[in-house]
Amino acid sequence: MRIGILTSGGDCPGLNAAIRGVARAAYQTLDAEIIGIRAGYRGLIDGDYQIMERHQFSGILTLGGTILGTSRTPFRNMRVVEEDNVDKVYAMKMNYKAMRLDCLVALGGNGTHKTANLLSDEGLNVIGLPKTIDNDIFGTDFTFGFHTAVDIATDVIDRIHTTAASHSRCMVIEIMGNKAGWLTLYAGMAGGADVILLPEIPYDIERVAKVLDDRAKLGKFFTIIAVAEGAMSQEEAAMKKKEREAARMEREFYNVSQHIAAQLEKLTNVECRTVIPGHMQRGGSPCAYDRVLSTQFGVHAAHLIKQGQFGVTVALAGQQITQNRLADIAGVPKPVDPESQIIRAARNINISFGD
Amino acid sequence: MRIGILTSGGDCPGLNAAIRGVARAAYQTLDAEIIGIRAGYRGLIDGDYQIMERHQFSGILTLGGTILGTSRTPFRNMRVVEEDNVDKVYAMKMNYKAMRLDCLVALGGNGTHKTANLLSDEGLNVIGLPKTIDNDIFGTDFTFGFHTAVDIATDVIDRIHTTAASHSRCMVIEIMGNKAGWLTLYAGMAGGADVILLPEIPYDIERVAKVLDDRAKLGKFFTIIAVAEGAMSQEEAAMKKKEREAARMEREFYNVSQHIAAQLEKLTNVECRTVIPGHMQRGGSPCAYDRVLSTQFGVHAAHLIKQGQFGVTVALAGQQITQNRLADIAGVPKPVDPESQIIRAARNINISFGD
Amino acid sequence: MRIGILTSGGDCPGLNAAIRGVARAAYQTLDAEIIGIRAGYRGLIDGDYQIMERHQFSGILTLGGTILGTSRTPFRNMRVVEEDNVDKVYAMKMNYKAMRLDCLVALGGNGTHKTANLLSDEGLNVIGLPKTIDNDIFGTDFTFGFHTAVDIATDVIDRIHTTAASHSRCMVIEIMGNKAGWLTLYAGMAGGADVILLPEIPYDIERVAKVLDDRAKLGKFFTIIAVAEGAMSQEEAAMKKKEREAARMEREFYNVSQHIAAQLEKLTNVECRTVIPGHMQRGGSPCAYDRVLSTQFGVHAAHLIKQGQFGVTVALAGQQITQNRLADIAGVPKPVDPESQIIRAARNINISFGD
Amino acid sequence: MRIGILTSGGDCPGLNAAIRGVARAAYQTLDAEIIGIRAGYRGLIDGDYQIMERHQFSGILTLGGTILGTSRTPFRNMRVVEEDNVDKVYAMKMNYKAMRLDCLVALGGNGTHKTANLLSDEGLNVIGLPKTIDNDIFGTDFTFGFHTAVDIATDVIDRIHTTAASHSRCMVIEIMGNKAGWLTLYAGMAGGADVILLPEIPYDIERVAKVLDDRAKLGKFFTIIAVAEGAMSQEEAAMKKKEREAARMEREFYNVSQHIAAQLEKLTNVECRTVIPGHMQRGGSPCAYDRVLSTQFGVHAAHLIKQGQFGVTVALAGQQITQNRLADIAGVPKPVDPESQIIRAARNINISFGD
Repeated sequence: MRIGILTSGGDCPGLNAAIRGVARAAYQTLDAEIIGIRAGYRGLIDGDYQIMERHQFSGILTLGGTILGTSRTPFRNMRVVEEDNVDKVYAMKMNYKAMRLDCLVALGGNGTHKTANLLSDEGLNVIGLPKTIDNDIFGTDFTFGFHTAVDIATDVIDRIHTTAASHSRCMVIEIMGNKAGWLTLYAGMAGGADVILLPEIPYDIERVAKVLDDRAKLGKFFTIIAVAEGAMSQEEAAMKKKEREAARMEREFYNVSQHIAAQLEKLTNVECRTVIPGHMQRGGSPCAYDRVLSTQFGVHAAHLIKQGQFGVTVALAGQQITQNRLADIAGVPKPVDPESQIIRAARNINISFGD
Repeated sequence: MRIGILTSGGDCPGLNAAIRGVARAAYQTLDAEIIGIRAGYRGLIDGDYQIMERHQFSGILTLGGTILGTSRTPFRNMRVVEEDNVDKVYAMKMNYKAMRLDCLVALGGNGTHKTANLLSDEGLNVIGLPKTIDNDIFGTDFTFGFHTAVDIATDVIDRIHTTAASHSRCMVIEIMGNKAGWLTLYAGMAGGADVILLPEIPYDIERVAKVLDDRAKLGKFFTIIAVAEGAMSQEEAAMKKKEREAARMEREFYNVSQHIAAQLEKLTNVECRTVIPGHMQRGGSPCAYDRVLSTQFGVHAAHLIKQGQFGVTVALAGQQITQNRLADIAGVPKPVDPESQIIRAARNINISFGD
Repeated sequence: MRIGILTSGGDCPGLNAAIRGVARAAYQTLDAEIIGIRAGYRGLIDGDYQIMERHQFSGILTLGGTILGTSRTPFRNMRVVEEDNVDKVYAMKMNYKAMRLDCLVALGGNGTHKTANLLSDEGLNVIGLPKTIDNDIFGTDFTFGFHTAVDIATDVIDRIHTTAASHSRCMVIEIMGNKAGWLTLYAGMAGGADVILLPEIPYDIERVAKVLDDRAKLGKFFTIIAVAEGAMSQEEAAMKKKEREAARMEREFYNVSQHIAAQLEKLTNVECRTVIPGHMQRGGSPCAYDRVLSTQFGVHAAHLIKQGQFGVTVALAGQQITQNRLADIAGVPKPVDPESQIIRAARNINISFGD
Repeated sequence: MRIGILTSGGDCPGLNAAIRGVARAAYQTLDAEIIGIRAGYRGLIDGDYQIMERHQFSGILTLGGTILGTSRTPFRNMRVVEEDNVDKVYAMKMNYKAMRLDCLVALGGNGTHKTANLLSDEGLNVIGLPKTIDNDIFGTDFTFGFHTAVDIATDVIDRIHTTAASHSRCMVIEIMGNKAGWLTLYAGMAGGADVILLPEIPYDIERVAKVLDDRAKLGKFFTIIAVAEGAMSQEEAAMKKKEREAARMEREFYNVSQHIAAQLEKLTNVECRTVIPGHMQRGGSPCAYDRVLSTQFGVHAAHLIKQGQFGVTVALAGQQITQNRLADIAGVPKPVDPESQIIRAARNINISFGD
């Protein structure tokens, strides 16, 4: 039994923990050989791999990043079957055979899962593992990496809180998440944000300004706003995607946090500052929750291999580890539901979503 | 609407976050008045309380401990209806009326919930909130405080790891949990423990010693053992509780970690050391996960009050917040299931449970 | 004895610890009354203050921010004695008398100390306390807040490290410090940066690019660059300040990190990303080092008051707490010395300063 | 040029950072070969070593423990020249020659430095590096590892604080340090302890009890006591060492924290609990301060080698890195001076030393 593993897409805490889970369970329950494919699908296309030894999986549980390296999606455009794509898929199939793989475990986010599904359709034995700090993979309650990113973003908000209060300022913290607001929602709630702006709930800047004014009336001269990268105003939400992108290029500030801060300074008398923690949200040692989840996910992948169940991705349903068919989840978005229990809970403690 | 709140039992991260959740949702959705009862049920017995003001719930989301104070269970013995108990229950009923409460929200663990159920049986409107670092309350997937304690215990194991490796030692870390091994299981898995000893899976010290020997044969001269306070050997497990307690008093070392370390030093040639982090596992600021969960729990309590649904405790089922009847969960244990998926996952990556 | 305290300038960890140190020592050794002046010198100008009570200094040792509030320097231009300035100084003198202060303790950075010196010249009894994350106050080895900021920035670099390695990227982390590079130097060394760019050592971008190329030749496809906000190229260093500012406005990217990343992408084949942690470097709970230092500084201020020694600011010399005359240190810069022992040490482990 | 390195004595954060500093500076400025001696002096006695490669020093800056392994002092009794000792010294000299070393860098605490001095007297070229969390090496202001241990112990006190307050308890935290109280003093001050008990200032338990009573009178029903492992009562201080050891064996509790807690419970009505964080104080990743200091120390060792200056140990004097003669510092204690500025500062903010 030869198992190929690759990690694809952006960095995410827990990748090494998941790799270790797959490998240790595969060694123990399948007596398998592990083939480490370098730098994501690029390594599969180029035939860049190594046969791993057991000791290489020691001491990596707590390590950030990925010992296999990663790269962005190999395809320029997933939706069109361009000639280039056909060539790359062909190369991946050939290398899968050349490496004499019995199956391929692909750790990644939405792009990774689309490619995994495509390779599965081509007849390869593929299993996905859902990693992303964005928590936007359909069919799993949580992806690994998410809760670590929540911890990091929450820590940022905690630090900003004291500055906001001391200076009587409004602080706008821009949190990762272009299409889905999970990270901003959780970090915002954990950090005690007064306003949370998500892609799923378009905001009205006047309503946000009103929060600042209302707080000032209560003698609270500072406000914490957690805003997702992909948050959009109600006007923007009414546009088509291309129009919206064009409109953003026209703004004084491209980053949403700076755009919002500038608008709020005009609408209120409050001094506004922005913080954009950026990439630090996706690096470093995974938190305990993600170490356990990644390990369980990895072990479950080995379990599925043992059962010969391919064309699936591992998932969390409640507290149980299970799996979904790649065909059912690839490319399906998982936005925050504006009517969900957690959004209602946030509203009930007077958090504003600017709507 | 007058809502009484109390926190009872051992300290636990997230108590203030939950109190804040109840209060902010109650102010906003019920326009209620919040009565803070001091030091748990003792305050209800003694009539020691204060009418809270809104600002008292500001800035406490991140704060460890409880602004209301806490105390251990008011009853010396829950199972016998002693005269003393009757008096105390009577006092609590009288003070509930004297405070003109419409309901009582009790935050605590198993003991707290037994008393809550008792007061509910007596006709008071009671709602429980399940807090405990032990995660041993029946009917909820997780209690708040648990994941913070996992983080702390994992951090201890992380620090110990380097010392173990540098000195080629076996380190035995004793983690809280007398009846349930949840905390040890999660922290052990997150910290990369080689051996995890739980109350639910009695160990054979010879098998634990064999792990050390087997690792030495592979050139790994250090071992990490995570042991729950309440872990027991297979001989102890065969005893009745009183016998077991008596046997422990006879041992050279009372603490299980020291007992195990001493035995392992005799059975192997490996130097063993113990670490007992103790109370630090139940103090300090809650992690992001627990802040969100505590907040959701608190808001749900307000929601139940609004619906007039009493005699229940809030619970997590999957990722949904729900509730259970106090009568169904009070006094029901929630041990780790030795056949559960997570235990099997741990075994599949070669973690030994000493059995 | 009535002691006024104010905190002025940007937020900085340890302000509350220092305030507590002054207050507790003043209560105990001087039986003094403490007057809290709100929002820095603005409160002294406006007569906005309160008589503090002892309990207000409890529980603030670990708290970020400042319980007194802060504001930027009250003067638009320190160097010119404008009419506005004269009015403000007059107002401060009047309020000092109106509050019946025996002395004023001013916590802040360079701007704060200039104003403190000015008030001292006007006959007020003033004592300064050097706080700033920039560590750029002349005459003291360290300011409080600095080591906390080093911890935060180092943690950012740690997290970024794994992403850089996994993606084979160059990561450029922009660290606070406009005029002085202390924070970047310490965090860069602690975080294992390959390149450190400081205002005090102008860089040649070609030399920085060469580091990336040289590393690639050794098989290291990632590079960590720690750059101070105020870092400048050798061309910029040759300009006058106004020219330099104008040139920066012309650049594609205003932020130095983005400017450098863009240039490096052109000069090398390496993908470059930036991280700008910003304000999170100046907020939150102080680290242990800063709690002890702030406390010692605060106590020393009370000691100086007892001795009637005014017109001075507290300082650290080696491990001793001492003081300097305000007249000797106000407005004197404290840049990193390019020939200092620590810079040479950094060079000896192959850290490049781009020169 | 062949440089041998060994790490000896207890684990300590910063060992790997210091090793990396020596190695990187030696490679760059001396073009040296580094010989890694395994498990401290034991490796020198047994001839257990390896020739290191450059890549082995990559990525270890942040790593706890020591990549070289460590062991306790090789001598059973340093003070007597036993036959066994003579044999071991002879073996070390022979292996030094057999390895063709030009010098030996020994990283360790007091025991390590005594042996280093002994080897220096025997004609070997030895340089010491002062590592210990206890900060008790004469002639250096700080050792590396100390500030990390302060951070860890302070974090423990922070977590305990909330539990103490919520339960109205006295918490007694036992901090490492048998002969010197530096760690307890700094962590106690940083953690806001009410009482700090050090080996250097013998306590009177009645006076400690009085602190609890006095606080209760002010409405503060909890107390934090930071006690060094080696703290002693005034009665014990009057005894000879052997008597004292014998008396301790007779006590109900051997650990000083438990002994004190039991006494305080008898003398007051306050519930007392103990926390003994133990080995976690000496493990894990070094804090930023220690990473910089360790690096500077390591680089300075390479600098001394280049200058041919042996028989010395690296030291911190103020903020300068310097060196002392091994003969001048080996075996010289460095206790906290009860009359020092920092002790007086602590007393001035009403911290009790129980005297």
